[in-house]
Amino acid sequence: MKTGKWYETMGNEGDVAFSTRVRLARNLAQFPFPARLDEAGRRRVTAQAQTALQELLPELRFIDMAQLPRTQALSLAERWLISPAFAQGKPGGALLLNPEETVSIMLCEEDHIRLQVLQAGLALQEAYRIADQIDSALGARLSLAFDEQLGYLTQCPTNLGTAMRASVELHLPALTALGRVARLGEGISKLGLTIRGTHGEGSEAQGALYQLSNQITLGITEEAALENLQAITLQIAEQERRAAAELLRQPQAEDQVWRAYGILQSARRMESQEALRLLSLVRMGAVRGLLPVKKEAVHALLPLIQPATLSLQNAAGEQPAAQDRDALRAAVIRERLAASGSKI
Amino acid sequence: MKTGKWYETMGNEGDVAFSTRVRLARNLAQFPFPARLDEAGRRRVTAQAQTALQELLPELRFIDMAQLPRTQALSLAERWLISPAFAQGKPGGALLLNPEETVSIMLCEEDHIRLQVLQAGLALQEAYRIADQIDSALGARLSLAFDEQLGYLTQCPTNLGTAMRASVELHLPALTALGRVARLGEGISKLGLTIRGTHGEGSEAQGALYQLSNQITLGITEEAALENLQAITLQIAEQERRAAAELLRQPQAEDQVWRAYGILQSARRMESQEALRLLSLVRMGAVRGLLPVKKEAVHALLPLIQPATLSLQNAAGEQPAAQDRDALRAAVIRERLAASGSKI
Repeated sequence: MKTGKWYETMGNEGDVAFSTRVRLARNLAQFPFPARLDEAGRRRVTAQAQTALQELLPELRFIDMAQLPRTQALSLAERWLISPAFAQGKPGGALLLNPEETVSIMLCEEDHIRLQVLQAGLALQEAYRIADQIDSALGARLSLAFDEQLGYLTQCPTNLGTAMRASVELHLPALTALGRVARLGEGISKLGLTIRGTHGEGSEAQGALYQLSNQITLGITEEAALENLQAITLQIAEQERRAAAELLRQPQAEDQVWRAYGILQSARRMESQEALRLLSLVRMGAVRGLLPVKKEAVHALLPLIQPATLSLQNAAGEQPAAQDRDALRAAVIRERLAASGSKI
Repeated sequence: MKTGKWYETMGNEGDVAFSTRVRLARNLAQFPFPARLDEAGRRRVTAQAQTALQELLPELRFIDMAQLPRTQALSLAERWLISPAFAQGKPGGALLLNPEETVSIMLCEEDHIRLQVLQAGLALQEAYRIADQIDSALGARLSLAFDEQLGYLTQCPTNLGTAMRASVELHLPALTALGRVARLGEGISKLGLTIRGTHGEGSEAQGALYQLSNQITLGITEEAALENLQAITLQIAEQERRAAAELLRQPQAEDQVWRAYGILQSARRMESQEALRLLSLVRMGAVRGLLPVKKEAVHALLPLIQPATLSLQNAAGEQPAAQDRDALRAAVIRERLAASGSKI
């Protein structure tokens, strides 16, 4: 089932780089920041931004967050299209989203406009190019809050300056299994970057998925920040590849990957955390050529197994009970794997 | 790979009754019991019995236990053809075995002659008929130790009388999972029968395999003992079927069966105990029509995964290291399941 979403393809360095995200924060000069606006004020900001953005990109769908059913809102957050807080649907908040889900623009979240471009794999330049084009066109239509000294003004001072956050979502199963992510993180923080697990807090990242992002927005150009992130990503990717080769030479690790594949092909019920853990192993097995399964299929499953997104796989689109959800999750995984792999 | 062994077919009540065994203990009147014989004495007894038995059944292969490689001896014990003690290969001990492995006769074990007939499924009458035919012919050729009052004389007084032990090997996965075997055992002992796990001591029978056997040899005819055992087996089989229907209605139990199937189809290494545990679940799934796999194939795997028997699957027939054995076990299971089931 291809739907044309970005996560159904694997981009450059796709074995390690799951996705790339570039986010720009912008505010309208004539309005206070959202936290200091009432609902009517937020609606005015949202309406102005919507008009300008849809003139520019007519394919953008307008989603009033206060009207959106909760499951769909949660699913947007699970697919990294909005922040979890934004899913709560505060009146006046709205999302503009293109069909491929590569461009998502939150209106009246923390800032008036949070423009995000998502791309498969490692694609910092491409993601930034798209974001920058939209930003430039937007700046020509709206008066944006900008200071010659500070750069773009944002509600939170940590975003001041470029007001850009660039990040790469990384899958590091081998470095995680070999216990090498913590040390990696120490080295990276010295270079002005941060790495953190994207699922679950604490040291153990669920599904071995991590976000590598730039930390500094002030006193650095966008280009320099992106080049830094690009170079570090390529280094980490090489480390993960070497670690995977080392790990999969261990008979026990190889066995674990095969068992994960067998369980996913066969189980009738599966909780979200277990699915993430097993799919992480199988994704490694697929990208490293160990398992007879199309790596794109495993890759595309990762966003789909989250509770809310999974619920939307139901024909009815209704929120099933947790039990039924575990059965649905197992069924979705089985179907995708059966359609995409030579069987065991 | 069909070899014509009895365990490759499933007999009557085969979903629950794995196999039937009837054993007769006989001793030659003119010799002391084996424990009181020296090696030369044991060799004389063995030679006399061998001559008589091979005249009667020329297809019987003579195996000198002292000459047999250890792995092959252990494999005979794993396949219930000899006692574990007999595998130690005391000089003078010998085995007579037919090609189907349904007739095995230990010479100079605890008694001079221990005649055992194995049959697939529940086949007490058939097994006894074969054992009785051999016994009668043997009695016509050799002078057997017999007392008008006591019946057949045996080294251990508990065997005196009929000197017959009949047993049925039962697979009771659902009664085990539902914790109902202990209560079953209490009821059975009142009826002069014993039930005990055949793999591993203690309360938890590995692989949910149990041996149901007659306890009383004195003051009862062979026919009455067999009828008793037959009737109880049929009752237990019905209880297991009802328990399986109850158990497999639980989504979690159904999931466990499917997961076991997935792991067995996929794993690259597997220890003997885990294999037994998972195959037990898959055998239940196969005989209850839940899994798309031929029940005969799963059934036939049970004897093959034991350490020594497994080693003999090696082309070289050599004893591999424990690690390699776990890999070999996983490979044998995968191959058999792949050849016998529709894939998942």
